[in-house]
Amino acid sequence: MKKLIGVDLGGTTVKFAILTAEGEVQQKWSIKTDIKNEGKNIFPDIVKSINHRLEIYGLSADDFSGIGMGSPGSVNIDKGTVIGAYNLNWRTLQPVKEQIEAGTGISFYIDNDANVAALGEQWKGAGEGSGNVVFVTLGTGVGGGIIAEGNLVHGVCAAGEIGHINVDPTGYECTCGNVGCLETVASATGIVRIARDLSEEYAGDSKLKYLIDDGQEVTAKTVFDQAKTGDQLAEIVVDKFYFYLGLACSNIANVLHPETIVIGGGVSAAGEMLISGVEKYFKKYAFPQIKTSTKLRLAQLGNDAGVIGAASLVNISR
Amino acid sequence: MKKLIGVDLGGTTVKFAILTAEGEVQQKWSIKTDIKNEGKNIFPDIVKSINHRLEIYGLSADDFSGIGMGSPGSVNIDKGTVIGAYNLNWRTLQPVKEQIEAGTGISFYIDNDANVAALGEQWKGAGEGSGNVVFVTLGTGVGGGIIAEGNLVHGVCAAGEIGHINVDPTGYECTCGNVGCLETVASATGIVRIARDLSEEYAGDSKLKYLIDDGQEVTAKTVFDQAKTGDQLAEIVVDKFYFYLGLACSNIANVLHPETIVIGGGVSAAGEMLISGVEKYFKKYAFPQIKTSTKLRLAQLGNDAGVIGAASLVNISR
Repeated sequence: MKKLIGVDLGGTTVKFAILTAEGEVQQKWSIKTDIKNEGKNIFPDIVKSINHRLEIYGLSADDFSGIGMGSPGSVNIDKGTVIGAYNLNWRTLQPVKEQIEAGTGISFYIDNDANVAALGEQWKGAGEGSGNVVFVTLGTGVGGGIIAEGNLVHGVCAAGEIGHINVDPTGYECTCGNVGCLETVASATGIVRIARDLSEEYAGDSKLKYLIDDGQEVTAKTVFDQAKTGDQLAEIVVDKFYFYLGLACSNIANVLHPETIVIGGGVSAAGEMLISGVEKYFKKYAFPQIKTSTKLRLAQLGNDAGVIGAASLVNISR
Repeated sequence: MKKLIGVDLGGTTVKFAILTAEGEVQQKWSIKTDIKNEGKNIFPDIVKSINHRLEIYGLSADDFSGIGMGSPGSVNIDKGTVIGAYNLNWRTLQPVKEQIEAGTGISFYIDNDANVAALGEQWKGAGEGSGNVVFVTLGTGVGGGIIAEGNLVHGVCAAGEIGHINVDPTGYECTCGNVGCLETVASATGIVRIARDLSEEYAGDSKLKYLIDDGQEVTAKTVFDQAKTGDQLAEIVVDKFYFYLGLACSNIANVLHPETIVIGGGVSAAGEMLISGVEKYFKKYAFPQIKTSTKLRLAQLGNDAGVIGAASLVNISR
């Protein structure tokens, strides 16, 4: 069986892996992303790094069935192009497939980074290979990917905008221009926003309130850490976050009835506490037959989800 | 090309159609559903009716690639069984596939009625053959079906519970045991419920309020008819319905980015007025890239959606 190459293209590093066709990671490495000069060096750097590694490992293009890549920005999966990847300084249309295939002689497949992470978790992580998995990633923003009946769902093109599910029609303004999107309350910055707002009204004794009033740096991690120690304000804040995320997850599940909703991203470092908190509201709002069968689980692959999912594009696209 | 048979099994009638492989309806007929004796006559009646019609038309089992059926109740599509179809008096497990195949000599495929109607609209109706279509049916209850990347989505088994998307966490109790489900406010009875509740608070002049206070029969149609004449209470009621349905549709679209959301069922008789009302809120809550590309459309096939979609099960399952 031929091998796979997975590439996870990010704003600070490009991660690479060589995997077996079954998804076992055999080699991993990374390079810095050079975003100077409108990101012109990104293609040559990727090509050079892949060719160099194949040489080191005594492998050739013939040993691979393909390269898969996850990319930020707006990806055209059929044409293999990317546009508007601002953290790479790629403002104009980038012929990614054409350049990488020309430079390596290996077939190339691409999708957006959230979809690729979803595929990784579905294939080798918390999704356990099920054909119906939803991946929710809670970081600076909230994103996701949908696998239904074994297929990654693109819809017209932008399926998986989980961060823009409306959870409060009278809520906060979102960067997308709408109001009350999940991202405004369940991203790392959203949780801090809730904390600051509730802190103003909160009259009791609270370390979290003290930290906010004192002007100290307060992150989502601060809020979860304080909640773990029993800080009442922090407990109210995380409970509000659980409500919003549980409501969104139940509505996704009422539509798709997935085996598993996988929750990843930086905020998920809060761990099993987060899963059981979200589950409380998920079970309140999901349809009876669904709440007893859809599982909520923490992502398992961490940073490797990207390269593993990217590699899987080769298998599912051929 | 061999032909298809579509069967739409309902609590009062069983509808049948003979179609070409391309979905053109060539013959249509129906029989009464005999639900006496725990629905024991339903299988023999269906078999007799199909065999009788084939004889009339000079056709034999060999002329057909299969029979597809939409059924109420809980359908096991792999085993071809149905359980808990209470409007048919089918309380115990019914071996539908086994019985119909034995009686007709034609391969048999089955799915639930909402999924089959979704397939019909997707194939030959408002979905225009797109691979990404969501069907929402507004009747006594609210149901639906999801087609994503060309596949009907079952998930674990109960995907498409659109009526149980939560649109108001502090809303009405639902028959499912949860609170604030779309069905409580967007079904025919839900609209009347909103009308009765808002009527109590309404102080102005209103024919709708008069009808309610006078104890006359008020249906969803009454509410829409009054809204069309400019009755202010009725306009407030339908606007609330538009809000809830628009919010639910936007959240479905933010997850799946379908080409089209098709709205059918008895309530959709309100027509294009309903579509433009729902669109107002859809455009408020759907992600920018999605609100400009996902279309809301009225169902086109009416009662034929069931037999056409049922027949399509043969094509997609073989």
